[in-house]
Amino acid sequence: MVLLEFIIGVSLVSLLVAGLLVRWIMARDAGSPRMREIADAIRQGAEAYLRRQYRTISVIVVVFAAIFAVVLRDPTNGLLGPQTAVAFIVGALASSLAGYVAMYISVRSNVRTANASLTGLDPALKVAFRGGMVFGLSVVSMSLLGISGLFLAYGADPAKTPSLIIGFGFGASFAALFAQLGGGIYTKAADMSADLVGKVEVGIPEDDPRNPAVVADLVGDNVGDIAGRGADLFESITGENLGAMILGAGLAVLLSRSAGSIVNYDLTNWVLFPLVARAFGLLAAIVGMFFVRARGKEDPFKSLTRGLIVTAVLAMLGFLGTSIWLLGAANINLFFAALTGIIAALLITWITDYYTSYTKKPVRSISEAARSGAAPGITTGISVGMESTGLFVLVIAGAILISYVLGGGLDALRPLVNPGILTPNPTDPNYTGLLATANLVKAKVGLGIYSTAIATMGMLSVTPFVLAMDGFGPITDNAAGIVEMSGTPEGVRDITDLMDSAGNTTKALTKGYGVASAALSAFLLFSAFLEVAGLSDTGINLAHPSVFVGAMVGAMLVFVFSALAIKAVGNTAAKMIQEVRRQFREIKGIMEGTTKPDYSRAVDISTRAALRNMIVPSLLVVLTPIIVGLVLGAEAVGGLLMIGTVTGIMVALFMNNGGGAMDNAKKYVEAGNLGGKGSPTHAATVIGDTVGDPLKDTAGPSLHVVVKLLNTITLSLAPLFALFLLKLLTG
Amino acid sequence: MVLLEFIIGVSLVSLLVAGLLVRWIMARDAGSPRMREIADAIRQGAEAYLRRQYRTISVIVVVFAAIFAVVLRDPTNGLLGPQTAVAFIVGALASSLAGYVAMYISVRSNVRTANASLTGLDPALKVAFRGGMVFGLSVVSMSLLGISGLFLAYGADPAKTPSLIIGFGFGASFAALFAQLGGGIYTKAADMSADLVGKVEVGIPEDDPRNPAVVADLVGDNVGDIAGRGADLFESITGENLGAMILGAGLAVLLSRSAGSIVNYDLTNWVLFPLVARAFGLLAAIVGMFFVRARGKEDPFKSLTRGLIVTAVLAMLGFLGTSIWLLGAANINLFFAALTGIIAALLITWITDYYTSYTKKPVRSISEAARSGAAPGITTGISVGMESTGLFVLVIAGAILISYVLGGGLDALRPLVNPGILTPNPTDPNYTGLLATANLVKAKVGLGIYSTAIATMGMLSVTPFVLAMDGFGPITDNAAGIVEMSGTPEGVRDITDLMDSAGNTTKALTKGYGVASAALSAFLLFSAFLEVAGLSDTGINLAHPSVFVGAMVGAMLVFVFSALAIKAVGNTAAKMIQEVRRQFREIKGIMEGTTKPDYSRAVDISTRAALRNMIVPSLLVVLTPIIVGLVLGAEAVGGLLMIGTVTGIMVALFMNNGGGAMDNAKKYVEAGNLGGKGSPTHAATVIGDTVGDPLKDTAGPSLHVVVKLLNTITLSLAPLFALFLLKLLTG
Repeated sequence: MVLLEFIIGVSLVSLLVAGLLVRWIMARDAGSPRMREIADAIRQGAEAYLRRQYRTISVIVVVFAAIFAVVLRDPTNGLLGPQTAVAFIVGALASSLAGYVAMYISVRSNVRTANASLTGLDPALKVAFRGGMVFGLSVVSMSLLGISGLFLAYGADPAKTPSLIIGFGFGASFAALFAQLGGGIYTKAADMSADLVGKVEVGIPEDDPRNPAVVADLVGDNVGDIAGRGADLFESITGENLGAMILGAGLAVLLSRSAGSIVNYDLTNWVLFPLVARAFGLLAAIVGMFFVRARGKEDPFKSLTRGLIVTAVLAMLGFLGTSIWLLGAANINLFFAALTGIIAALLITWITDYYTSYTKKPVRSISEAARSGAAPGITTGISVGMESTGLFVLVIAGAILISYVLGGGLDALRPLVNPGILTPNPTDPNYTGLLATANLVKAKVGLGIYSTAIATMGMLSVTPFVLAMDGFGPITDNAAGIVEMSGTPEGVRDITDLMDSAGNTTKALTKGYGVASAALSAFLLFSAFLEVAGLSDTGINLAHPSVFVGAMVGAMLVFVFSALAIKAVGNTAAKMIQEVRRQFREIKGIMEGTTKPDYSRAVDISTRAALRNMIVPSLLVVLTPIIVGLVLGAEAVGGLLMIGTVTGIMVALFMNNGGGAMDNAKKYVEAGNLGGKGSPTHAATVIGDTVGDPLKDTAGPSLHVVVKLLNTITLSLAPLFALFLLKLLTG
Repeated sequence: MVLLEFIIGVSLVSLLVAGLLVRWIMARDAGSPRMREIADAIRQGAEAYLRRQYRTISVIVVVFAAIFAVVLRDPTNGLLGPQTAVAFIVGALASSLAGYVAMYISVRSNVRTANASLTGLDPALKVAFRGGMVFGLSVVSMSLLGISGLFLAYGADPAKTPSLIIGFGFGASFAALFAQLGGGIYTKAADMSADLVGKVEVGIPEDDPRNPAVVADLVGDNVGDIAGRGADLFESITGENLGAMILGAGLAVLLSRSAGSIVNYDLTNWVLFPLVARAFGLLAAIVGMFFVRARGKEDPFKSLTRGLIVTAVLAMLGFLGTSIWLLGAANINLFFAALTGIIAALLITWITDYYTSYTKKPVRSISEAARSGAAPGITTGISVGMESTGLFVLVIAGAILISYVLGGGLDALRPLVNPGILTPNPTDPNYTGLLATANLVKAKVGLGIYSTAIATMGMLSVTPFVLAMDGFGPITDNAAGIVEMSGTPEGVRDITDLMDSAGNTTKALTKGYGVASAALSAFLLFSAFLEVAGLSDTGINLAHPSVFVGAMVGAMLVFVFSALAIKAVGNTAAKMIQEVRRQFREIKGIMEGTTKPDYSRAVDISTRAALRNMIVPSLLVVLTPIIVGLVLGAEAVGGLLMIGTVTGIMVALFMNNGGGAMDNAKKYVEAGNLGGKGSPTHAATVIGDTVGDPLKDTAGPSLHVVVKLLNTITLSLAPLFALFLLKLLTG
């Protein structure tokens, strides 16, 4: 098991590096007493929120785990229930820990970034980015450690163990949904109430210390954008790794039937390949990190891009080496599949930038339309968001088809032309020959699908670095807030503004990267589900009425979940708005700056409301596929899964890009165009931005998790759906 | 062929009744010279628009027909290409004629309704409703005549002819898409510019004759809500009839294999059943019409409902009789399937009312949220629209499953439990017995699917009456405008307002009915596609990468089409706004009422812009499935079709209900609540209404057509997709 040792070793090294980075960051100066005071308030608020959130989640996790332990049964494995329950709990714990670590470092990096910006751009950039790097390294290495640990604990049989540890992925997605949704509700409700009462009603600037909601707003960045995203990405990586391992294990049967004639095949290598490739990605990111430094007054985004390029090149070299080492030089095509994946990632980033950057036509068309009023601006924003699905789908579709053919060759296309080729008729005189062809074609199809999984792995090989860029955004955002609130001189604000603007760009691009990986991995996870549910030969037949019904329910689930998520933001914001208004009214001296507002009460109200409002939408997503599976069976769930996933990706794209475009349409006006700040056009774009906020920061990102959760739920519970109601009815 | 004679006879009688109604309407007084003058301007504008629209459509239709004539080939039928091309042209002509007839009568009923309202409610109600009835009767009977005519012309073979005449449905959908989209763009662009410049910038009331866009706005009601809807519903009815006939024909093979043991089966009866049931629906509507009269000052909506109930009861009696007559008393379950369909229609109407009426919670929550500003109102509106998909899907899912089991019994569920049951292994010692079971189960499955088609027919049995209610809305809307513009006394305005409000309610409810029938018939049409493409045994397998890609493209198509449709409204409105502003600026004396604005120039600009902007989105919808079919084959198109349909229904529901709810949230405030007209809350809801307008009146209704068009395209071109690129590649 030299591979497992390698994976675990690299993960531990990465955690060590993360620990050293934490020490390095903590050794920086945390600034003036005023800065520390603000940072402490943010830290306390974020910690209090996460503590309560994890308490709520843990109750739900334990209840579900207990049910799974009892009801999951498999004739060949009496331990399936308890094993899944344990993996589920470990997954939920690991995901929560990932979120906690992310929050831990971000509430400490923010103030140090703020203080470092007093001395210059380079020190500030380094603190913020290394804070993000702690986040990136620990999320990825904890996922690898959890999977390898359970793999060892559950027998380390490459053919069977992968499907036993799916519970780990399910637990991770389960906890991540609550974390991302709860955090998303919190951050947007706080943001909206701070803006609406502070900026609009009372007329004080952004991040003004007189605003009672300002600390809650900064806490929101940490619990939503950091802890929520941390849990989200932890479950993404985990789900995709597990799915790829299951496909690798499924190849065993297919390739053995075709008499080993196709490839030099070592099952363990193929099953563990995704994890080894990930380990190389960690090493590449650690090296890439050292290339992130500000050369003079260089745009921080440029420094980050330099590091990303170094990481990507190294990761691809690592991929090339790993694939020759583990899969054999004859399968070099699989490396090209990985390359396809990373090229697709680049194209998606470019498309996201095109639709959401204010230097491009779509965002400008929103600002232009807003000259006639808020409504035309919003209508145009909706249209831009919807249109952005077009090129995205073309790129993902291309990546899937190309990598499929790279892995399986033209033979893998033959079942499309002649479905009968897979099931020869035993009465045919030439049955033996036909059967051999059928087995060969099946093996090629399996290789093709494994190859699409490799493309996903290729796209994901730079994840640790992308995560670090993702964490960079909210840390600099917080730092800018702390600088503003502590009344630091003007020149410093220039540096934080520069970093903040780079952070906004990275945030938009990494969101695009996130949906792209979700879309590409949807096919991977769906294939894994068919494998686990024993449907990989017959497939899911859309012509069954129950499958059609499952499909409709899947699409509907995405819309109803989004509706509830948006409503939750509205309800929570309404509570906050009342509180902020009350403080301005009842606490004398706030506006004069002689009395401090009661920040902690605002934080407390946000916390309670966000937690209460996250429960119903999350349970809806968890329970619906279970109910459909129990009533209509595994094939109907397959329909739900597939259509829910595809619809979820489209709606998430629409919301992320539409919301992002409307945000930047406002920024374009604020940059002095079309009348600038204070003009009627500006007022119109502000309304558009507020409409887009819950779409792009709550519902959209939560849908990324929903898409993955649907897959891990159905993967874990597939054995349950074999005993469904219709089966009992028809005897 | 007594059945065909019956169908054709009833259709001709209905056309005769429609003709008598036209004579009756034309015999009413067309009012004062001022009224006639306005009505003439509307009539001329509408006729000019339709003339140009049909010219544009006819060029495109001829080009496509020529291509189909050449490329469509079938080894067993050398005439397939020309036959499809002719049916395609006839379908497009008939759909356009339906739109023209609808417009013809509405621009004549509007002014007569206006004048009749001077003498009382009952005369006005009768003119408006009978105008709608002309529309309802002629649309349905022309569809029946077209189908029966082509059925006779193409050989009248119940087993083969239905699939030869799909081209008729394709032509109808094709022309309808252009008509609905073009009309939808026209009406919303005119409406937005009239409101924005007239009401907001210049401050004159709705329908004020000083507004240069006011005539274009009234023309829009006729070309969008009347002619567009006429073409839309013509293609709906046609597509659903053809789909049900194909399923009936498909039963022939299945039932014959099961040795006739299941039912007393006469193929012609089963194939023509949907048309006969429709003919009874026509008769029921004619009787129901006489129950529509105003008793004193009774709410007109009540009078309409009374007529609808009479029609529904009669239609169900007709259905009961027809099913015993044609399908045999042993198949009485199929009548209960029809009953399921009509109950589902009632539930959907109730759900639509719940989500869009301002007496209910959802709309009030939008108005409440708008108290904090336009953005919270719009966010809540989006959330209401998305949430409305939930109950809708549950009802449709229930109707499909219940009617499926009613038709096929529990046996029809067995393939879900044991997919292998349909393909017994020839080497099994008990092969003969297993084969008999397989054939029995296949026949039961076929009956189950036919039964879901019957449920659709049940839902659609009241279509002629619903269409009349649908036409009632825009006619009264126009009448109210004419009364306002001709300066008629206050008391009269009360009567038209009463009717206008009833018209708004019927419009919302019939839209819900439209989507419900689209959803239910989606499954029907999809099953028909599998039948025609020879995929009904193997089904569509979502696990093929090409099917997954097709599915993603289908979902994306819905979003990109919606984006382009919304953008088209914006572009057209921008042109109109410039023109209206120019007229106010350059023509002296408009505001004083001394000079008349140049209405016809505004009409002309709307016409040109709407026509130019309808082309790209429509061609996108037509060409995408063709390209996917040519490159990836029929199975991938099946994925596109299914996911495109499901996603299209969800997005249409979201847009229709969200837009409708935001419209009524404004009306709730205008009724004097939360501050009433002129308050900031009112201003906020006006913005929300404007955002919702292009969603609910352009993109949403066009999506109904898109959903059906995707089905008829793929049905018609299925033979083409057999020669796809991948097949050529793999040899």
